[in-house]
Amino acid sequence: MRHAYAVILAGGSGERFWPLSTKARPKQFISLFGGRPLLSLAVERLGGLIPPERVFIVTAERLVEDTAAAAWNVPRANIVGEPCKRDTAPAIAVACGLVRRRDPDGVVCILTADQLMSDVETFRQTLADAVEMARRGDAIVTMGIQPTYPATGFGYIDAGEALETGTVTRFHQARRFVEKPDAYTAARYVEGGHHFWNAGMFIWRTETMCRAFAEHAPDLAELCDRVAESGTSEELDAVLRQAYPSLRAISIDYAVMEHARNIVMARGAFGWDDVGSWPSVAGHFSADLDGNVMIGACEQMESQNNIVVSENRLTALLGVQGLVVVHSDNATLICPRERAEEVKKLLRRIAARPDGEKYV
Amino acid sequence: MRHAYAVILAGGSGERFWPLSTKARPKQFISLFGGRPLLSLAVERLGGLIPPERVFIVTAERLVEDTAAAAWNVPRANIVGEPCKRDTAPAIAVACGLVRRRDPDGVVCILTADQLMSDVETFRQTLADAVEMARRGDAIVTMGIQPTYPATGFGYIDAGEALETGTVTRFHQARRFVEKPDAYTAARYVEGGHHFWNAGMFIWRTETMCRAFAEHAPDLAELCDRVAESGTSEELDAVLRQAYPSLRAISIDYAVMEHARNIVMARGAFGWDDVGSWPSVAGHFSADLDGNVMIGACEQMESQNNIVVSENRLTALLGVQGLVVVHSDNATLICPRERAEEVKKLLRRIAARPDGEKYV
Repeated sequence: MRHAYAVILAGGSGERFWPLSTKARPKQFISLFGGRPLLSLAVERLGGLIPPERVFIVTAERLVEDTAAAAWNVPRANIVGEPCKRDTAPAIAVACGLVRRRDPDGVVCILTADQLMSDVETFRQTLADAVEMARRGDAIVTMGIQPTYPATGFGYIDAGEALETGTVTRFHQARRFVEKPDAYTAARYVEGGHHFWNAGMFIWRTETMCRAFAEHAPDLAELCDRVAESGTSEELDAVLRQAYPSLRAISIDYAVMEHARNIVMARGAFGWDDVGSWPSVAGHFSADLDGNVMIGACEQMESQNNIVVSENRLTALLGVQGLVVVHSDNATLICPRERAEEVKKLLRRIAARPDGEKYV
Repeated sequence: MRHAYAVILAGGSGERFWPLSTKARPKQFISLFGGRPLLSLAVERLGGLIPPERVFIVTAERLVEDTAAAAWNVPRANIVGEPCKRDTAPAIAVACGLVRRRDPDGVVCILTADQLMSDVETFRQTLADAVEMARRGDAIVTMGIQPTYPATGFGYIDAGEALETGTVTRFHQARRFVEKPDAYTAARYVEGGHHFWNAGMFIWRTETMCRAFAEHAPDLAELCDRVAESGTSEELDAVLRQAYPSLRAISIDYAVMEHARNIVMARGAFGWDDVGSWPSVAGHFSADLDGNVMIGACEQMESQNNIVVSENRLTALLGVQGLVVVHSDNATLICPRERAEEVKKLLRRIAARPDGEKYV
C-alpha cells in the first residue's frame, strides 16, 4: 500500500520476563516463539502490506544495535533511539516527524513490538482496511480486539455505533477509552459485547497526527516538527538529545486519545495476545498430561501445572505444583504461577545487591 | 601412633545429592563445607594421629584420579580402585591385605569418606583409644555415636555392659547390630539410652580381621591374602580385576559383624553426621529469619524454609515454601524438602533420556 508506514514502538523494560528478559534484553528480544524474537515477528507479519523500508522502529538508545540485529531487514536509518524513557506519546510524535520527513501524505500505523498474533492474514487485511479508512479523512483509527476472557490487564475501548465495513473489517465510533478494569467490571464488559481490548495500535495520517498534537500536546507537536525538519541522522539524534530530558513522560492515551473526538475503532477478529506474563506465555505452548508446560530440557515426576523455561540446562521437578521456573544464563526465578507478576518487587531487591547489575 | 593405619572407604554413587553430585562426582567430592571436598576433610581430620602416608583409600576404579586430586597428600600408591561395586566387605578385605603387606602388626581403622564431624579433637582421642583397645587383643572395635534424635536412616548398635574407659572413651560390649528402625522403635532406642548410631567405623588388627574373614567369609579371606601377597601396583590391579567380578556384593555388617562375638563399642561423644540428604546438609548452615538456607547467590521474597544451593548463578525465590533447589553447571533440581530422598526415582527417568548421560 502506497503511503502506508509502520512505526513499531520497541521500548520495554524487561521486568516481567526476568530473568529471560533483562534491562539489556527486554521482552521484544525474547525468542520463545518459533525461536525468533517478538520484534522480528512484528516486522515479518507486515510482509506484503508494508515493506521493511517503510518500517520505522523507535526504541531506547541503548537498544538500537540489538534492535537492528533483530529487525535485520529494516534499514538502519529507520531505527531511532530515544535518549531516555518518556512513555508512548513522545515516541509517537517522533514517529510522526520521521514519516512526514519521508512522505507528507504518509499514513502511520503505530504498532507494538512485543505481542503475538495468530491469523496474521486477517490482521493484515484489517490493517489495510484501517489504513484506507485513515487515508480518506481525519480519523484516528484504533484496533479493538474482541475480548476472549475478562482480562483485567488491558485497557478497553467502548465501541459506539457501527460505521461502514471495509473489505473484512467492521468499524465503529470509539466512544471512549477505559482503563484496566477490576474483575467484576471486566466480566460485565465481556458480557455486554461492546467493549474491546485496546491493543495500542493507531492508524492515522501524519496530518491528522500533527493536528492532534497541536491541539492537545503542543510540546509534542514542536518535537514532531523538529524531527521532520532534521536532515541527517546526526541532526535527528541532536534534536532528540536536546528535547527529551525536559519532556514529561506521558502515554498517547492520556496525551491525545482521551481528548480526541475523531476516533474510529476497527474490530480486530484476529488472535491477539499481549503475552504479559509467564502464564500467558505458557498458553501458547502445549502442556503435558499433568498440565506442565516445559520449554527446553525438562524432566518431571509427580508434578503438575508448572511452567518451566529451561534453555541450556536440564530442569528436574519432583512433586511440585503450579510453579514458574525460568533460567537465564546466570539467574533462576522460582515462584508460584499466580505470583509471577510480582517479580518487579523482587527485582528491586536484586538490583540493590552489590552484584545486582549482573542480573537485572 | 605407630602401627595405626586408616582405610577410607570412598565409593559412593552420587544419587542423593544430584545434581551437585553425579556418578562421576559422588558425595565425597562435594565442596559445600568450608569449600573443601568431604574426602579431603576425612583425611585432614586424622592429622597428628595417622599421617597421610599411612592412609589408604579404596574407591571405584573410575574415581581414582579424582580421589588422588581431592586427597592430594595421600600417596598415589595408597589409593586403590575397585573394578566394580561389591559393597563394603570386599573393600575392607582389600584394605586388610594392603595394610598387612605394609605392616603385619598394623591396626586398621576403617573410616568413611563422606561424613561430617564436629569436635574433631574428641574424635581423634576416641580413635586413639580405640586403636589402643584393638592393638591389645582381638577385639573388633566399632564407634557408636550417641543419638541426638530418633533417626530412622541409620543402623544402631545395642550396647551391653560397660567395659573399661580409655583416656576419654567409654567402651561397652556391643550386644548386637540392628538395622534401620521405624520411627517408633527409633524413639524407644533414644529414650532407652543404650542404643547408639552405627557410624560404620571399625578398628581392628589385621590379624583379627583375617581371622574374622576366615571364619565368616572365606572367599574374602582369600582375596585379602592375594592382595597381601601382590607386589607391584600392577599385580594388585590384576588381582582385583580377576577376583571382583565373581564376588558377591555384601556389607561388612552382614559378612562379619552380625556373626562376630568379640565386638566392642567405643562411645563417640563427638558430633557426627552422615549428611545423607539435602535437609541434613542444610542443618550445617545458618538459616535466614524466614528459615531459608541459601548457599551461594540467592535472593528471596516472602519465601520460607527453602534450601537453595546456587553456585555460579543467582537464584531468586518469590512466595515459595519448603523447597529444595539445587543447581549444577548443567542441571537444576526442584522438589519439596520432605521428598528430597526420592530423587533416585527421578534419576532413573533422567538416565533414560537420549541425552541422559550428560546429567546423571
